[in-house]
Parts: sequence; structure tokens; C-alpha cells
Amino acid sequence: MPQNRQVKLTARPEPGLFKRANFTIEEVPLPEPGEGEIRVRLEVISLDPAMRGWVNAGKSYVPPVGLGEVMRAYAAGIVDASNNPRFKVGDAVQGLFGVQEYAISNGKGLVRINLDQAPIERWVGGLGMPGWTAYFGLLDVGEPKPGETVVVSAASGAVGSIVGQIAKIKGCRAVGIAGGPEKCRYLTEELGFDASVDYKAGDLADRLREACPNGIDVNFENVGGDILDTILMQMNVFGRIAICGLISAYTAKEPPPGPKNFRAVLTQRLRIRGLIVFDWRDRIQEAIDQLGTWHAEGKLKIREDVQTGGVDAFPDVVNMLYTGDNNGKLVLKV
Amino acid sequence: MPQNRQVKLTARPEPGLFKRANFTIEEVPLPEPGEGEIRVRLEVISLDPAMRGWVNAGKSYVPPVGLGEVMRAYAAGIVDASNNPRFKVGDAVQGLFGVQEYAISNGKGLVRINLDQAPIERWVGGLGMPGWTAYFGLLDVGEPKPGETVVVSAASGAVGSIVGQIAKIKGCRAVGIAGGPEKCRYLTEELGFDASVDYKAGDLADRLREACPNGIDVNFENVGGDILDTILMQMNVFGRIAICGLISAYTAKEPPPGPKNFRAVLTQRLRIRGLIVFDWRDRIQEAIDQLGTWHAEGKLKIREDVQTGGVDAFPDVVNMLYTGDNNGKLVLKV
Repeated sequence: MPQNRQVKLTARPEPGLFKRANFTIEEVPLPEPGEGEIRVRLEVISLDPAMRGWVNAGKSYVPPVGLGEVMRAYAAGIVDASNNPRFKVGDAVQGLFGVQEYAISNGKGLVRINLDQAPIERWVGGLGMPGWTAYFGLLDVGEPKPGETVVVSAASGAVGSIVGQIAKIKGCRAVGIAGGPEKCRYLTEELGFDASVDYKAGDLADRLREACPNGIDVNFENVGGDILDTILMQMNVFGRIAICGLISAYTAKEPPPGPKNFRAVLTQRLRIRGLIVFDWRDRIQEAIDQLGTWHAEGKLKIREDVQTGGVDAFPDVVNMLYTGDNNGKLVLKV
Repeated sequence: MPQNRQVKLTARPEPGLFKRANFTIEEVPLPEPGEGEIRVRLEVISLDPAMRGWVNAGKSYVPPVGLGEVMRAYAAGIVDASNNPRFKVGDAVQGLFGVQEYAISNGKGLVRINLDQAPIERWVGGLGMPGWTAYFGLLDVGEPKPGETVVVSAASGAVGSIVGQIAKIKGCRAVGIAGGPEKCRYLTEELGFDASVDYKAGDLADRLREACPNGIDVNFENVGGDILDTILMQMNVFGRIAICGLISAYTAKEPPPGPKNFRAVLTQRLRIRGLIVFDWRDRIQEAIDQLGTWHAEGKLKIREDVQTGGVDAFPDVVNMLYTGDNNGKLVLKV
């Protein structure tokens, strides 16, 4: 009799990384779709930095994952049972299915994916939510103009790597901040960034200034903390900062200090805007089409870091997001 | 022989308030206008919180006042000699004339004022730069919609008092934060704010929440520090924050911490934008016309705090901006 293995959040983590004890892995009977529902056999689960925020009890942009609930996650898979006329068995779909092997859905909020265009892991990778985030965050919030300098932090990550490549497509100077020489080399030699800065190598301000001789017009910010503080001091007048993530704060043991160079907002008349890709939910198809086209044209290089071990590996693998050990968009194969 | 008394910046202040020793008062011969120039006999000098920033050596939105230069200030006066066909003796004008009794100008950047519409102190008060700042900052940056809640800090100040009144004109709930019961009473009983919160009375977060039962949609921020931190935690999704001033930082002995609740920018998808009224310099006439109309209709109540003592009193009187001892827009009568 087929079973469904589920990873449930059963204890909220203390500040810091996830622990295995925060989760319970349960085996339950394979669920049957009800009226209007489909069952999806998940193949790949997307691991995203936002996960750390989803499990905190406090106020956020979405309600926290409840104790005893399946851990929230984007995933992609194949419909293997359908009571919904919009989906048939064999359709490939992406959605907020959770960390489990099978999911039931009424079809709302699902995105159809085309496995002829790209392998399934790419649809929870660069062509999935990270790609949409890069697309709307850079273009709608950052509003880059040709010739401007765009700086993205966590630049070798799933979102950051696409931000820099879109910046190049739009005629900007793309500068990436990443940790370690290998990631920095990847940005400039493989992804076509104009420059990269290794934040682990010290002298961040000086080396960022070298990489941005004309100052910074657009910052796509994934990290916050010291990196944001350094960037703030080099922003040009009327610069834009898209706050996509504040990874440095997610796992901090105590509330981190705010940006100490915040006064630059006033002196440089900066625009700072927080962004969450859900706010563009009505325009996802636009992003998919454009990203897919660029990908087909060879203008977007995307790399997934596919971890194996199934859902049981989730509690360990997820922490790679915060320790920087992943190499490309982190995906867990079911 | 007529003389011109000038207040020159001769030593940059240490962090904190201005000291008399930062300035030297000099008496020089009355200057004669050159070709294309006019001489203006100043009657009132505008004292503005931005002055503290203008004297710091560091990078800001305008170059710092140089050592040995006349202290920068807006002022209004009467043309008493003219070699410029655009101005005749007796014209009333407003401009960046500095802290002195007479100023020479080539006419660039001057604004004509009409002393039949309002007394001269009002043209460096509510109908001057503070009014323009409130007008563009609230309407262009804050983008308030009818029914939304607008919170302004330093609400009894020159800019804040007008922000709240424009918010009311636009159909919003206007909430002012000010220090002390008298200022708070003034906001609600005389200016028509819907509610006021005394930040000196403790429990700021609780009392702000009472004043803003539907959360905060627009924050016009003049203060920063703890006040901004408290506001950040009560912002509604998609809220806008216009950073007009960070008074709490101007006189701080050491760089103040950044907004510790900065993460709200991400969770609430806030838009923060720094504003400096100079950026709207091409639209000043629009602001003057609209503010003048509202004033004539009795919709804008404006109060100046006119200090006497002439330019010699400047080094002492200017600190009232930072100690909160002024009662309305601070103006120094020459």
C-alpha cells in the first residue's frame, strides 16, 4: 500500500539554524483527491531562504507554518490522479505543495510547466520563483536604466545570479557580491557579470568602490547587515534599493541592528522598497514567458544544486541556504 | 556709513548642539550690487533643522557651508538696490540669502512673495520652504488616498503641522506625534488633526496604536530613531514612508543606530523614500499657488515663532530647533 512521507514542523526553532528536532517525519496513507482536486506526485522541492521566516511565530507577509503542519515549500511534480477537468494525469505543475512526497491541490495558484523546455528541477530553480523574483524585483522595483550600475548581494544564489544577468540584458553594469573566490569567479567568468566582490576577503567598502567607479544606482539586496550598510554609503543620488531578503537577519541570535547608514536615504534621496514575489501573482505568466525566451536564447545561465536523500534529508539540507554551502539554487530531489 | 552684519561659520561644531564659538559675527561695509545683481535688505531669516546638516563636513545633498562663509539660510526681504531688470527697488523676495542683514543676488533661484497676501514672516514660514516640503513630500512621496491614515512626527513643527492639514484636506485620518500636552492639544484642537500622541508621555507604541486603529498607511517622518522604529511596527502592507528629516540623528553625539525594525520594509513591502524639497525646484510655483489658495480658504493654519535680537541672536536661537523649545516655525527677525 503506497504511503506519503511528510515533513511536519513540530517545534519552532530557536534563533539560528534549523535543527532536526524542529521537524517530525511521518508516514501517512496516500491521500485521495476529493471533488475538484488533483493529487501530485512531487519530484523536486524548492529550498528557499524565506523558509526560515515562514516558521517564526511573529507577524510576516504570510501566516507562519502552524505546528503540526506540513512544512511549506514550493515543489514541482506530475499529476497522478485528477478530479479536476483543468488538469489531467501526466500534467507537470508547480505550486506550494509542501515538503512531502504527494500533495493534494484544488488547482488554485498552480503554474503549468513544460518539461520539453527545461528539466523539472529548473522549474523550481531559475525559471521558478527565484526567476520571477529577480524579474519583477529588478525591473519593477529597481527600474534600471542602460549604463547604470546594479549591485546584487548573494549574487551567486538563485535570485542574485538571475538579477545580474537581467541587468546585463538591460545594458547595465552588473556587480555581484558573493562569498569566496570560487563564487566570484563563477559570476564574472560564467555568468557575465562585469565585476564581483568577495565579502569574505575584507575591505568590502574599498573593493566595492573599485567595482563601482561610478557609484551604485540600483541595489538588489538579499542580505542586509554590513553589506547593506556598505552599499548605502556608495549609492548615487536617486538610487533605488529593492529589499528582497535580509538573510543576515533570518538566523541572527538576537534582533540585528538596523542599517546604521540609513541617513543616506535622506541625503541621497534613495527609494527603498520591500518586495515579495507574491505581490506580482497576476503577472507570473509574463515572467515565465520572458525568462523562458531569454533562457532559450542562451542569455540566462542557470545552475541548480540538486540534493538527494528525499524528504527525510530536508531538515539538514535546508540549512545550506544559511551557511552558504550551496552552489546554485538549492533543490531537493524527492 | 551703513554696514552689513554677517554671521559666519568659523568652526565646525562638535556633535551635538551649535555653540556660539562656532560662529563669528562681523560687520562689513554695505555691499554694492554688481552688473545684473540686486541687493536685498533682509527682514526675516528662516531657521530650519537642515542647518545642522549644512555645517557638517561630510557628504550630504548640498555642499557643506565653508569655514569663513556666511551661514546658509533662507530669508525674505525687500530689494533696496537693483541692477537687474527683473527686480525693482521695493520688490519682496525670498531666497537663500544667508544669516546677514543685506544680501547680494543675481536673481537666480529667488521667489517673489506678495506681502498683500501674507505678512513677510509667513513667506519663510508655512508658505515658504516648509510648506513646499510638506506639499511635495506628502502628495508626491506619501501618495495618500482618502480614508488612509497618515502619521507625521514633529507634527507641531513647521513642516509637520502643514502635512497633517493637507492630509485632512485629502480626506485622510491625520495623526500627529509631538512632545508635550500643549503641542498635542494644538494639533487636535486648533489644526484639526484627528488624534495626537505625546512621545514624551511613554507607551508610545500603545498610544500610537490607539490613535491608528486601522494601522498606518503613510508616515511623513521628520524625527527617526525610536519614533520611526515604533511606526515601522504599525505600518500597513504597501505603506509609504517619506523620510523628510532625521532630527534625532542630527545632534547625536555618535552615529545613531539604524531603524531596528527595518525588517518591516520586507514583510510589509514598504516604500521608503528620502526627500529634499530642492528636487521639486521646478514646481515651487505650483506649491505656492496651492498652499496660498488653501490658506486663503482658511484650510491651513500657520503659526510662526518669531524671535527677535537680529542676526546676533542666531547662534543661540538656532538651537531651539533641536531642543524643541520653539512653538511654530522658527523665524528670526533681522
